[in-house]
Amino acid sequence: MSLLIKNGRIITATDAYVADILVEGETIRAIGKDLSLHADETIDATGLLVFPGGIDPHVHLDMPFMGTFSSDTHETGTRAALHGGTTTVIDFVLQKQGHSLKDALADWNSRARGTAVGDYSFHMAVTDFNENTRAEIKHMIENEGITSFKTFMAYKGALMIDDRQMVALMQEVKKQGGMVTVHATNGDVIDYLVAKHRAEGKLAPLYHYLSQPEMTEAEASGRFADMADYTGCPAYIVHLTCEGALNAVRNATRRNQKLFVETCIQYLILDASLYEDDFEGAKWVMSPPLREKKDQTTLWAGINQGLVQVVATDHCPFMWEQKLMGKDDFSKIPNGHPAIENRLELLYSEGVHTGKITLNKYVEVACTNPAKIFGLFPKKGTIAVGSDADLVLFDPTEKHTISAKTHHMNVDYSAYEGWEITGKVKTVLLRGKVVIDNGNCLVEKGYGKFIKRNKVSGTI
Amino acid sequence: MSLLIKNGRIITATDAYVADILVEGETIRAIGKDLSLHADETIDATGLLVFPGGIDPHVHLDMPFMGTFSSDTHETGTRAALHGGTTTVIDFVLQKQGHSLKDALADWNSRARGTAVGDYSFHMAVTDFNENTRAEIKHMIENEGITSFKTFMAYKGALMIDDRQMVALMQEVKKQGGMVTVHATNGDVIDYLVAKHRAEGKLAPLYHYLSQPEMTEAEASGRFADMADYTGCPAYIVHLTCEGALNAVRNATRRNQKLFVETCIQYLILDASLYEDDFEGAKWVMSPPLREKKDQTTLWAGINQGLVQVVATDHCPFMWEQKLMGKDDFSKIPNGHPAIENRLELLYSEGVHTGKITLNKYVEVACTNPAKIFGLFPKKGTIAVGSDADLVLFDPTEKHTISAKTHHMNVDYSAYEGWEITGKVKTVLLRGKVVIDNGNCLVEKGYGKFIKRNKVSGTI
Amino acid sequence: MSLLIKNGRIITATDAYVADILVEGETIRAIGKDLSLHADETIDATGLLVFPGGIDPHVHLDMPFMGTFSSDTHETGTRAALHGGTTTVIDFVLQKQGHSLKDALADWNSRARGTAVGDYSFHMAVTDFNENTRAEIKHMIENEGITSFKTFMAYKGALMIDDRQMVALMQEVKKQGGMVTVHATNGDVIDYLVAKHRAEGKLAPLYHYLSQPEMTEAEASGRFADMADYTGCPAYIVHLTCEGALNAVRNATRRNQKLFVETCIQYLILDASLYEDDFEGAKWVMSPPLREKKDQTTLWAGINQGLVQVVATDHCPFMWEQKLMGKDDFSKIPNGHPAIENRLELLYSEGVHTGKITLNKYVEVACTNPAKIFGLFPKKGTIAVGSDADLVLFDPTEKHTISAKTHHMNVDYSAYEGWEITGKVKTVLLRGKVVIDNGNCLVEKGYGKFIKRNKVSGTI
Amino acid sequence: MSLLIKNGRIITATDAYVADILVEGETIRAIGKDLSLHADETIDATGLLVFPGGIDPHVHLDMPFMGTFSSDTHETGTRAALHGGTTTVIDFVLQKQGHSLKDALADWNSRARGTAVGDYSFHMAVTDFNENTRAEIKHMIENEGITSFKTFMAYKGALMIDDRQMVALMQEVKKQGGMVTVHATNGDVIDYLVAKHRAEGKLAPLYHYLSQPEMTEAEASGRFADMADYTGCPAYIVHLTCEGALNAVRNATRRNQKLFVETCIQYLILDASLYEDDFEGAKWVMSPPLREKKDQTTLWAGINQGLVQVVATDHCPFMWEQKLMGKDDFSKIPNGHPAIENRLELLYSEGVHTGKITLNKYVEVACTNPAKIFGLFPKKGTIAVGSDADLVLFDPTEKHTISAKTHHMNVDYSAYEGWEITGKVKTVLLRGKVVIDNGNCLVEKGYGKFIKRNKVSGTI
Repeated sequence: MSLLIKNGRIITATDAYVADILVEGETIRAIGKDLSLHADETIDATGLLVFPGGIDPHVHLDMPFMGTFSSDTHETGTRAALHGGTTTVIDFVLQKQGHSLKDALADWNSRARGTAVGDYSFHMAVTDFNENTRAEIKHMIENEGITSFKTFMAYKGALMIDDRQMVALMQEVKKQGGMVTVHATNGDVIDYLVAKHRAEGKLAPLYHYLSQPEMTEAEASGRFADMADYTGCPAYIVHLTCEGALNAVRNATRRNQKLFVETCIQYLILDASLYEDDFEGAKWVMSPPLREKKDQTTLWAGINQGLVQVVATDHCPFMWEQKLMGKDDFSKIPNGHPAIENRLELLYSEGVHTGKITLNKYVEVACTNPAKIFGLFPKKGTIAVGSDADLVLFDPTEKHTISAKTHHMNVDYSAYEGWEITGKVKTVLLRGKVVIDNGNCLVEKGYGKFIKRNKVSGTI
Repeated sequence: MSLLIKNGRIITATDAYVADILVEGETIRAIGKDLSLHADETIDATGLLVFPGGIDPHVHLDMPFMGTFSSDTHETGTRAALHGGTTTVIDFVLQKQGHSLKDALADWNSRARGTAVGDYSFHMAVTDFNENTRAEIKHMIENEGITSFKTFMAYKGALMIDDRQMVALMQEVKKQGGMVTVHATNGDVIDYLVAKHRAEGKLAPLYHYLSQPEMTEAEASGRFADMADYTGCPAYIVHLTCEGALNAVRNATRRNQKLFVETCIQYLILDASLYEDDFEGAKWVMSPPLREKKDQTTLWAGINQGLVQVVATDHCPFMWEQKLMGKDDFSKIPNGHPAIENRLELLYSEGVHTGKITLNKYVEVACTNPAKIFGLFPKKGTIAVGSDADLVLFDPTEKHTISAKTHHMNVDYSAYEGWEITGKVKTVLLRGKVVIDNGNCLVEKGYGKFIKRNKVSGTI
Repeated sequence: MSLLIKNGRIITATDAYVADILVEGETIRAIGKDLSLHADETIDATGLLVFPGGIDPHVHLDMPFMGTFSSDTHETGTRAALHGGTTTVIDFVLQKQGHSLKDALADWNSRARGTAVGDYSFHMAVTDFNENTRAEIKHMIENEGITSFKTFMAYKGALMIDDRQMVALMQEVKKQGGMVTVHATNGDVIDYLVAKHRAEGKLAPLYHYLSQPEMTEAEASGRFADMADYTGCPAYIVHLTCEGALNAVRNATRRNQKLFVETCIQYLILDASLYEDDFEGAKWVMSPPLREKKDQTTLWAGINQGLVQVVATDHCPFMWEQKLMGKDDFSKIPNGHPAIENRLELLYSEGVHTGKITLNKYVEVACTNPAKIFGLFPKKGTIAVGSDADLVLFDPTEKHTISAKTHHMNVDYSAYEGWEITGKVKTVLLRGKVVIDNGNCLVEKGYGKFIKRNKVSGTI
Repeated sequence: MSLLIKNGRIITATDAYVADILVEGETIRAIGKDLSLHADETIDATGLLVFPGGIDPHVHLDMPFMGTFSSDTHETGTRAALHGGTTTVIDFVLQKQGHSLKDALADWNSRARGTAVGDYSFHMAVTDFNENTRAEIKHMIENEGITSFKTFMAYKGALMIDDRQMVALMQEVKKQGGMVTVHATNGDVIDYLVAKHRAEGKLAPLYHYLSQPEMTEAEASGRFADMADYTGCPAYIVHLTCEGALNAVRNATRRNQKLFVETCIQYLILDASLYEDDFEGAKWVMSPPLREKKDQTTLWAGINQGLVQVVATDHCPFMWEQKLMGKDDFSKIPNGHPAIENRLELLYSEGVHTGKITLNKYVEVACTNPAKIFGLFPKKGTIAVGSDADLVLFDPTEKHTISAKTHHMNVDYSAYEGWEITGKVKTVLLRGKVVIDNGNCLVEKGYGKFIKRNKVSGTI
């Protein structure tokens, strides 16, 4: 089976040119101009941009959290992702404290395998690092293709590891060729502020925000950087949101350290003024919370400075009914918001269309860097001969409006309801197959494959 | 005329994969796997890396300086560049104070046109910015394709402009879509130290080094950054050598500023201990001088941190006889060293081979970023359909030794005599034509074309 | 002649206690509690604070500038100073470019000697450093008791020296035991902006402010710090106004450097919103200009952090008629504002009374540090046995209002008209003599003595 | 009873002058020149310096630690302190986790009251902050005169509080008018490294050092600063040792924060090369450990920059036999070293005599600042009318050698054995009484009084 995509403007993290792409089977076989090649099928991409399939390295699908589950399953979540041009996601397996990594992986496999529509991989969240766990790291990297290990500096008693475990984990992961990633925030201080606000009867979503001041994230980012520097372990900060935290990374450059930094689309375009309205603010209750305008400015600058490498989502949707669990107590609102489907269009419209970033940078942060940093490259994350034919045909001029009425995520509100967008995903290919065409999904659950990842290092 | 390069491992700033490249005329028409395409000629690149032709954005050919001329003409210099895999260079036109930019361009054109073997472009060095000059900026950008304007914060009375002119120039250049580049150093302090050392009878090359302490560069880099931030003009620091100066750039990131930074190969791999030997040190008398080991560490880190975007040469060779002009007085030693031919092999051997940087990063700093930053892209700087077929076939394992006896630069010593290198340029194509094959240059003077450049911006 | 000041609350930079002070002749002979000592005269200071006489190390009296003279002579200026509790001032002698330091000193002596009412000393402003001037530095320090050398990084062609001269001067001054002080700003950039604004017809006082953006001061402060660090010369930045400049000093601490920093009272309590009104803003046309609220915050913090050591005035008054010289062109408004009489009361009311600084810190920055830094100590700047009996009896609770109608400076407007002040100077002694009592000056012109200063160093 | 000290050179944090001091009862009644005052007794201090009695705000006397007790009791420790010119010490009461502050205070009182020879006060170490403890803070400040609360970020399970408790404590302490002090280090990381080294059989004292890398202190100092900034609580870092930690404080100044910083004499003059010798290094096993030469440079600079306010000792002596508990395992060596007697003479000899700091700065960091920061002022810490007559008559030229054979501390080795010192304590007065004269202690145990301290703030 072969397919020819003609005349699209191909965009990679480096290049931008008009050419035809010949797909054979699941991969790209050739790229060229006016090739008189035979193909079983042809798609005319004239006037369209052709991006690599987006990679969202930070999603939580069907995740047990706060007594419920995030509302997108691996099926609905990856399908919505495909609608939005994201062909591969990296979900998080959460070790249960006192249990093994393998058990956790088995649990996640049982829900994801045969369910996902788009391709996916797993990070392993290490929530209890001990001698048993240590022995599993190598296995995860070499046998399971899971090469990144997520840590939490918050959620004590559930997910958090202390700094003793952190340094020990870093030393082991470095040795085995993996990377440590982190939810960098001072969980102890947050726990205190949450308890304090609750004790004072301050129960609205606004207090979710006020319980996680910038300081908690800036401090922990610096602390994590210190430990990474000490151990030499490849290191990555997830969902960095604010100036204070990015300055911790900037400070680290002075000692010649390299850290990878991910922000999420919401931190680039939304701000904490959304918490001012009553319970409505629950839609954006996530951790870290939205920040200030100044932080948006810093994050866009960080992308262009090369200090922020990835724009993800931390997609973790909950139905409004689930959010209502916290109606009388912000600390009971399930944390997270839906964005897996919106990320690429929002980033295009708010980033490229406004001139904040170039087309190449767009592909770099949304597709290529996630693939490189996490060992999916060159299979994923680029448009190159031999790579998977994961492709997004994108109309850079079409305008449309985001709404829960039309989105495909399994959540009954949109965090971006009414946003007017310039640029639209038209057609999506995953491993050579058209999976989305004009808003229709053409593949069934189970089409998505688990992707084993390669060993990684601190440079790309 | 078509040419098929088969089975090479193609490296761009983003990608790395094995495929065939079909060249038609001067450009790349297709890239693919096992294509059964017809071509007039075929080159087997099995086992070789295929890089984009190198771009050296900082060379001084046939340049009048200190009463003499740099010893490589546009012919010998670009030919040596080709031997080393660099297919395009950007040379500097130097305005004479009191004269117009046009006159300077005419002067340089008279020496370069019809002479160059490889492709070239010009930066315009503005040494006297006034109302007359202001009016020429637009012309240079729009008609001559010269979009970058070099400034000197040193060499008072000859090349230096003061900060008044700098800010004025930045405002005009920004308006017209160009970029200001800078030799950032405190010329006044250097002039003082030179005079002082001479007055004290301290005349050896070592005092060249001691007359340009790190502070002079750090200070001026910070000052330039301040002015660029104030004006918003796209800005680029040439030949940054030291921790102090890179820290000035790091500080600038805190106010969300983006600056482009170039270092040169010598600052990454040589250090000031070379000045300890007698007059021998004259070989490395250049400005800024070589620095310390700590600075090498910082520069390699800066590359991986994304804060240093370009590795150039500041190639400016002088015959030993010319260097001897300063036998009794370091201040009379013509400044500069030969490297145009060695840059890529040195960077590969000392950077990629040792594991300091990845292959993609190598192409990024040596080929792609110079092209993008200076508006040569996508014609130059990458391997992509539609781009010029400027290609380097490189054997990553072949070992050889650098020597003045075998190099092609018109200079009778080598700054890297006896260096053992892993990795060798085997075949070079420029605009679709094999120009170097196994050490032989197959084209004549005049083959090189002047390349007009596009408008530029502060982001790539 | 002896005098007993009974029961005042004595405040030094260190201490605070109630005791009696016995003055004999010009100096303090004893301090004690319930001493039954004989004295020719007794003053009851019960309920009052007793401060050391204030020292204002930055005033311009009878200074030729912009074609006119500052309106306070050494007589009127020092008399007004006494009214405000400032018993010693350090005025600036300005070398004329092309002339000697000695000539300048002779000129200033001719106007100040026999004229001053309060004590005074001189800084020497070096505006033309060359071999002739170099030879004069030692003489100034050892014979004239002038141990600080002011430099201007602005006012090219009149006062500015370039960095070549700066480094040379620093090396000589360091050798001879003096200190270099600086008006740190990028004069070239300011000259450009002034010219640009004028060319654009932007002629209101607001454009004075907009011609001296924070960057000009931040840059120059960093540059000066770099040169001071390189030479090791004791160094002092006068009238630092803004966050950017203080951050340059903070950065310098990272390389273990010590710089002295002076701010002025106006930068602590006024801001640039005053430039919004028409020509009224001319009252505050000074260089550097007033800054933002954020800068006030930084300066108060800097005082408590120990990074800002001195609060001076840069007193340089001009009559409204003189200010009107710039009615149609801000660049013709004589720079400077009157504050010599108001400094101590404003600093008390806005600093101590509001709780921003302690009483000890107040004395430290307004009296003791200026004396120590500039070699007037222990003769001046403290209340200690053997020191000059320069004393201020201050009622910390009395409220009053500042007005041109009641002030004693020779200027027909007040920069603080209508400000309500808590705390009032009641009685002032200079060298043992009551010079001010309840608003009356009891001494004649000529009472003030020139004070030779000691050699200084970079630590106190 | 009155006493006249004649002709000494009186040094305070501000002043330096020759005069007589009249002591009446316990306090200073007058200071003057050639006073013909009657006194019951006269001491001739001609040629001597007269300092305020030293204050060591960081000592551990008779402290239970690691299964033993520090070897100086309140008797031997304060007597040795007096011999060295330190008239007041602040010892640490250690709350036992699960018990109240009151119980701890009662325990310490039972050992100190009636025992101490010199004056003393207590810090309260809060090792378990909860609702019960919260209620005790106010009592401690208002009733017990204990206004500073020490926290440990290390020694988990024994002394450490987590960040949740830290922030809660800070908020309460701020409210009540106290100060939080901290042993800032990342205890978790240290615990990990200790365990790791032990598991690897790395058991020599060197591994004590290698288990507490600079990072652990730098990180925690930054974290503590962040929490102090967030809460606005007056804050003080004890025994800061290194560049990384001081840079955290320097960074904090950029957000206009003021932190107090204490270093100890050993970190200024000893370095980690002492750990290279076998078990001998146990003499200097303390936490934090000794650091590098670069850190000494930074600390001396920090003192002159005004960023380090106090030089203490962290005196915590153990007999050699006690140190031998860790002969086969560095983690069992009791932490601490003897210095209470040596601090002032070492600081004079290595600081003042070498020209690193001035005499005033010496008094400031060793006497006045500790008194001011901790609320002992003006009773203690200065030489002023009304203050306690705690005085040290010091011969600035006398040379002597430190030795365990001659020191008065209850420990059988000296950490400074054989050090040659310039400057010697000759006579010491405590509350008007000569307590040390020419090496003899003239008072008995029980002479020392507990000093209640005042409320404190973040500025002095």
